[in-house]
Amino acid sequence: MRMLNEQKVMRDPIHGYIHVDLQVVWDCINAKEMQRLRRIHQLGGDYFVYHTAEHSRFAHSLGVYEIVRRMLEEVQSLSDYVSAYEKMAVMLAGLLHDLGHGPFSHAFEEISKKRHEEYTVSMILDETGDIYQALVKEHPRLPQDVVSIIQYRYKKECLNQLISGQLDADRMDYLLRDAYFTGTDYGRFDLKRIMRTMRLHDGKIVVKDSGMQSVEDYVMARYHMYWQVYLHPVARSYEKILVALFRRMKTVYQTDPQLLQEVKMFHPFLKEEVADQTALFRLDDCATLYGFSCLQENEDPIIADLAKRLVNRKLFVYETIKDNKQVEDIKHRVSKQGYDLTYYVHVDMISQRPYAPYSGKNEKDAVWILKEDGTVIALEDASVIVQALIHAKVRKDQKIFYPESL
Amino acid sequence: MRMLNEQKVMRDPIHGYIHVDLQVVWDCINAKEMQRLRRIHQLGGDYFVYHTAEHSRFAHSLGVYEIVRRMLEEVQSLSDYVSAYEKMAVMLAGLLHDLGHGPFSHAFEEISKKRHEEYTVSMILDETGDIYQALVKEHPRLPQDVVSIIQYRYKKECLNQLISGQLDADRMDYLLRDAYFTGTDYGRFDLKRIMRTMRLHDGKIVVKDSGMQSVEDYVMARYHMYWQVYLHPVARSYEKILVALFRRMKTVYQTDPQLLQEVKMFHPFLKEEVADQTALFRLDDCATLYGFSCLQENEDPIIADLAKRLVNRKLFVYETIKDNKQVEDIKHRVSKQGYDLTYYVHVDMISQRPYAPYSGKNEKDAVWILKEDGTVIALEDASVIVQALIHAKVRKDQKIFYPESL
Amino acid sequence: MRMLNEQKVMRDPIHGYIHVDLQVVWDCINAKEMQRLRRIHQLGGDYFVYHTAEHSRFAHSLGVYEIVRRMLEEVQSLSDYVSAYEKMAVMLAGLLHDLGHGPFSHAFEEISKKRHEEYTVSMILDETGDIYQALVKEHPRLPQDVVSIIQYRYKKECLNQLISGQLDADRMDYLLRDAYFTGTDYGRFDLKRIMRTMRLHDGKIVVKDSGMQSVEDYVMARYHMYWQVYLHPVARSYEKILVALFRRMKTVYQTDPQLLQEVKMFHPFLKEEVADQTALFRLDDCATLYGFSCLQENEDPIIADLAKRLVNRKLFVYETIKDNKQVEDIKHRVSKQGYDLTYYVHVDMISQRPYAPYSGKNEKDAVWILKEDGTVIALEDASVIVQALIHAKVRKDQKIFYPESL
Amino acid sequence: MRMLNEQKVMRDPIHGYIHVDLQVVWDCINAKEMQRLRRIHQLGGDYFVYHTAEHSRFAHSLGVYEIVRRMLEEVQSLSDYVSAYEKMAVMLAGLLHDLGHGPFSHAFEEISKKRHEEYTVSMILDETGDIYQALVKEHPRLPQDVVSIIQYRYKKECLNQLISGQLDADRMDYLLRDAYFTGTDYGRFDLKRIMRTMRLHDGKIVVKDSGMQSVEDYVMARYHMYWQVYLHPVARSYEKILVALFRRMKTVYQTDPQLLQEVKMFHPFLKEEVADQTALFRLDDCATLYGFSCLQENEDPIIADLAKRLVNRKLFVYETIKDNKQVEDIKHRVSKQGYDLTYYVHVDMISQRPYAPYSGKNEKDAVWILKEDGTVIALEDASVIVQALIHAKVRKDQKIFYPESL
Repeated sequence: MRMLNEQKVMRDPIHGYIHVDLQVVWDCINAKEMQRLRRIHQLGGDYFVYHTAEHSRFAHSLGVYEIVRRMLEEVQSLSDYVSAYEKMAVMLAGLLHDLGHGPFSHAFEEISKKRHEEYTVSMILDETGDIYQALVKEHPRLPQDVVSIIQYRYKKECLNQLISGQLDADRMDYLLRDAYFTGTDYGRFDLKRIMRTMRLHDGKIVVKDSGMQSVEDYVMARYHMYWQVYLHPVARSYEKILVALFRRMKTVYQTDPQLLQEVKMFHPFLKEEVADQTALFRLDDCATLYGFSCLQENEDPIIADLAKRLVNRKLFVYETIKDNKQVEDIKHRVSKQGYDLTYYVHVDMISQRPYAPYSGKNEKDAVWILKEDGTVIALEDASVIVQALIHAKVRKDQKIFYPESL
Repeated sequence: MRMLNEQKVMRDPIHGYIHVDLQVVWDCINAKEMQRLRRIHQLGGDYFVYHTAEHSRFAHSLGVYEIVRRMLEEVQSLSDYVSAYEKMAVMLAGLLHDLGHGPFSHAFEEISKKRHEEYTVSMILDETGDIYQALVKEHPRLPQDVVSIIQYRYKKECLNQLISGQLDADRMDYLLRDAYFTGTDYGRFDLKRIMRTMRLHDGKIVVKDSGMQSVEDYVMARYHMYWQVYLHPVARSYEKILVALFRRMKTVYQTDPQLLQEVKMFHPFLKEEVADQTALFRLDDCATLYGFSCLQENEDPIIADLAKRLVNRKLFVYETIKDNKQVEDIKHRVSKQGYDLTYYVHVDMISQRPYAPYSGKNEKDAVWILKEDGTVIALEDASVIVQALIHAKVRKDQKIFYPESL
Repeated sequence: MRMLNEQKVMRDPIHGYIHVDLQVVWDCINAKEMQRLRRIHQLGGDYFVYHTAEHSRFAHSLGVYEIVRRMLEEVQSLSDYVSAYEKMAVMLAGLLHDLGHGPFSHAFEEISKKRHEEYTVSMILDETGDIYQALVKEHPRLPQDVVSIIQYRYKKECLNQLISGQLDADRMDYLLRDAYFTGTDYGRFDLKRIMRTMRLHDGKIVVKDSGMQSVEDYVMARYHMYWQVYLHPVARSYEKILVALFRRMKTVYQTDPQLLQEVKMFHPFLKEEVADQTALFRLDDCATLYGFSCLQENEDPIIADLAKRLVNRKLFVYETIKDNKQVEDIKHRVSKQGYDLTYYVHVDMISQRPYAPYSGKNEKDAVWILKEDGTVIALEDASVIVQALIHAKVRKDQKIFYPESL
Repeated sequence: MRMLNEQKVMRDPIHGYIHVDLQVVWDCINAKEMQRLRRIHQLGGDYFVYHTAEHSRFAHSLGVYEIVRRMLEEVQSLSDYVSAYEKMAVMLAGLLHDLGHGPFSHAFEEISKKRHEEYTVSMILDETGDIYQALVKEHPRLPQDVVSIIQYRYKKECLNQLISGQLDADRMDYLLRDAYFTGTDYGRFDLKRIMRTMRLHDGKIVVKDSGMQSVEDYVMARYHMYWQVYLHPVARSYEKILVALFRRMKTVYQTDPQLLQEVKMFHPFLKEEVADQTALFRLDDCATLYGFSCLQENEDPIIADLAKRLVNRKLFVYETIKDNKQVEDIKHRVSKQGYDLTYYVHVDMISQRPYAPYSGKNEKDAVWILKEDGTVIALEDASVIVQALIHAKVRKDQKIFYPESL
């Protein structure tokens, strides 16, 4: 393993410092695929709700890397169980796991018809890429091993768990980071204590009984962040318009591609076939927003109108749906105003359960608690709080979005 | 109402500043009964667990006052509903509600056989006291009205609720303050948002739907603080010894009072009759700890030993009770070592339910949520989280405490 | 003055909440010129040093507005002195003062040859703009009065001081905000205490003696932020390349404009004449970064290389200049490698004095301290610390920047 | 070196956790001399100014220990230079350096006529003490070596510097801790960055150039804390009365000792000869405050009055001295009211210079900066800020204290 001459550190408000000792980690941070993540907002359209939620996936990726690095250092039993090579691989998996995100990510998956995880894998394995080059320079098997961990397929389950289990470094970083950058308190939980009480037990990550309250707190933090931030109706309004705009562009592109000549960055995503990672690589938030900016003067009035709404934050208003009549009334009024319902009225139902119990099938979905007497049980069996939450009614929210000008 | 020439402010880490405009509030803060609270730890023996939990009931009392003051200022509908006189009375109730606490409070109630609320009332109504004098100087009815609010008997229910409802200024301050001074994160919740979403509705304090998540967070904060701080076994160990020492002193006092001549401060609490507020006034943490210090060389070996344990933090160890055999074994061993079981083995069961629902009887126990459509429902009916929590199993913890030297 | 039906609030990590009561403020926030500031980074290229410094001028503008709003509310003597109309005008001046910033602001002023303050004024006074429309709807004189305050020309000096004095809301917000988003502690100072000790005295803003230490702290915070953040050599390296790229584009544009056809957003800034506010309005960070992205494949090798450096963070390295020989050596080596020195070697000298005293001429440059005895003196005469700092040697830093590949 | 079976941790708001690995450190923490520090306020009478400044010397001592521990871990060059035994000794020196503090410490030194450093040494070397026993159990030379470091006499200068240099763990902890517990921001500085830039160079602790701003910030923090907290006139007022009460008790003790029979804890400090560490051990804040409480009903009216003032916070008022006439006027009025000037009027001058330069004599007084080119220079020669501060006028404050009732 090639070490840097001197440890590099980067100031970070969540973790104090990000520490880098390995050459390959440093090279990946400086790769163009990672630098691109500076131009992808972590929270998509949420900065139209929380005006300071302007942080990028780049910062988050460094944070995930750092949490993995500390877990490997702090959790002695884990540290003893994995080789130096595996430590490197899992830290890199933490760093690179979000590489394939497009702009305004979750909405974008609807548009690109390919999940960001798949793009991530394509990018890491793209032999012409900076990342692939950096990884193979360190070890020929490294790209594949990093991908295995990201895909939750690596042979040592605990490494997969660190990146995408119920209690993984990804979620830990984003809850803390999103709380910090939105200015809300909801995402806070006691990361230090969880780390201190983590152990490796029979090849799995478990948390000692004495850390259970911190885990309960983390479960609640997650639940609160969903409702207060991630599923906020104003952010959903932004995403509805974004998807509508792309849908309209696809239609226009088939009949009159000339109209969209100016916005080349969108072309690969307007075609029938699914776009590859090269197209995605070029489409960051800046390209997207610049594209929208150009579209404001488009000849197609629907495109122009939707683009203006996105650029200038003239979002759709929304109501909680009570009955069908309300929906029909709104559609009627919107239609009467001359709006095309396909693009201008959106019904959207979301639901979120506080905690999903371990089904007994997928280790990925379990959080294990190590009792004082050495037995290991599922979180929901150890915690009266979590036990209660799995029986809680699923909270639902059904809303209708439409133009304000009614 | 007499105003101060200039607003007084006191720096406070929880609220930024405590603001005082009224002469009577200032006079009460400077009264000897309030100054005494500087010598009563807010968290009893908890500073033997969390070494920085050294804050006093004085600071907490200022905090409760400040929260009440801000609620009266921020919640417009509340502000309009109550008179200037009532505002003064409820702020004073917030300031004075803990006046009757003895040292190591909850344990002390076992010793004094009188609840701290009763002592608070006696102290406020003691005509020779500084507090009474300060209050009547402002208005002849004021002592009685402050007491009414503290006793949850004032005619306008909302004022009682501010001081001792489910969502009162008392708990709000202590959760935030105890979290800050222990250095844990558990007690944190979003006070600003709760205040912003509070309303007066039909004479009751309610919280708008949009603040419900902050209330859920507050409910969880309370639950976590109980288990992590207030019911911590090390603090319970301290309190067990404290109660045992007093019990031993009572026995000795009846047979050989001479032995306890030196510790006059304890005498009123060793007699048959319940001690009055004058005795309590004199007994603060300093007097108690100095008393224990003197008792270390007492001729009664049990008293001396227990006192040494308290002064030098040689606390009892503890185990979670699994079965009766374990208890009998411990008793046997302790007894064999020559210890008197009355003082040296303690079995203690605590339980805590996450949230108790509104029974329909006592307004005091309800938190009301104001829905968007103007209806008001109980928190547990509005929140899927709280609904789940009221059905959660009660969490129990049964422990046995005994001397380490076994 | 038109009030909103209900106060609007926006969560903000620095100030808790931003509060909006006035319709005109709300309209300006929603104007397209303000929304554009969401696409301008507050700290230009500093996010290449501090990876979380990704906050926008939009968030900062809200913060300045909020500080002004609170000062008008908290400083009684100030509140009494200014009319409701003036309060509105100065809050709007705080909100709008940064409207004319271009991308990567300070470097950009070198390119646009027009200061951002002038662009701000043009934008506010542009009768076709959203902002102008929103302001005149409230009052015909409002655009001009807001501009007057921003230009430090309003008749009541104190209003000018709030926006651009030595102790203005602008700096107060950016120090706190930049500290928060970089994750450094340097910019911290006690805003609450400064506000509490501010007074209006003879039409000027002064600070009571008892707040002087907080002002000293603020002066130091400013000094530290300059060296640690604003003048960080890596950010300067980014800006050097940015300016070099524009210089190269200007040259190419004159001889072979065809080569730059693709990057229309830059054209107005490549011409002889100074670009107007319409051109600036279109050029935000997104347009710029997308432009750079396109330029990576430009036929002109210098343009392509410099663009790649900016997009992928392959910045110039730097050394502190010791003597002329060192500079000549570097130039020689860079030249030998085939680089054009005009674009590839940059010498840059910066200096910063800790505090500049009041010259007696411009009120703008003074901070006044109100002594207990009622006299008013300059900060540097009241504070032994600041007195010392004005006599401190000016700190200088001269660096040379060049490509790493040497 | 005996290790604990498992690392012990204690939650701490300043450092996250205090970590203990060594048996001897754990034994010392549990020694009665250390437990006594729980009953000594860190900031003497300052909690009468900042009501939350109620933290103890116990918490501070743990903090100093923890900073030393981290420095030994983080500063590689230092870690390599000192043996495991020396690491243990210097951590213990950090833990134990404040053992000999009396109640209300600085005022108390005036009363006891012996500096707390001397008491600390006596307590550590007292063969009957818990501390001595714990230390010799580890190593026969340990008590003496710990004392050497505390006395700045250990052969490796860097170890002395860690405990009592200009940039020592003691000050670092107390600035951060006192800032946290008073709720002020003044004491804040970037401890992490200072640690990261510390190096060992020629056997001395130095700070790399890149950490200089953090050191400047630390110097300013220190200066601000002095004026805002440590030298606050209200705290000085409390201490003036305390000293006056002891002076009065001494006089009475010589003529009529019977009057003071009740307050045995004070006797050793009322005699001619200097009290030994056993007397000091018994006199903590609790004993003192209980003593004052008893003295409120003393037959000597001056004693009773002064005691009441201390117990009930009826402190002396104060004025800044302008001229001699003012002093004489006050004395005249106080005297006319029947007060004995010896006890009731106090003139007090304090001065504080922002930074004292290295005189060239005592290493203890130097902070060394390691330049990029490898040379080492004094902080005041490296920093334009500190250079300015050493030439700043000394700030002085002369006040007169007297009873309010005039």
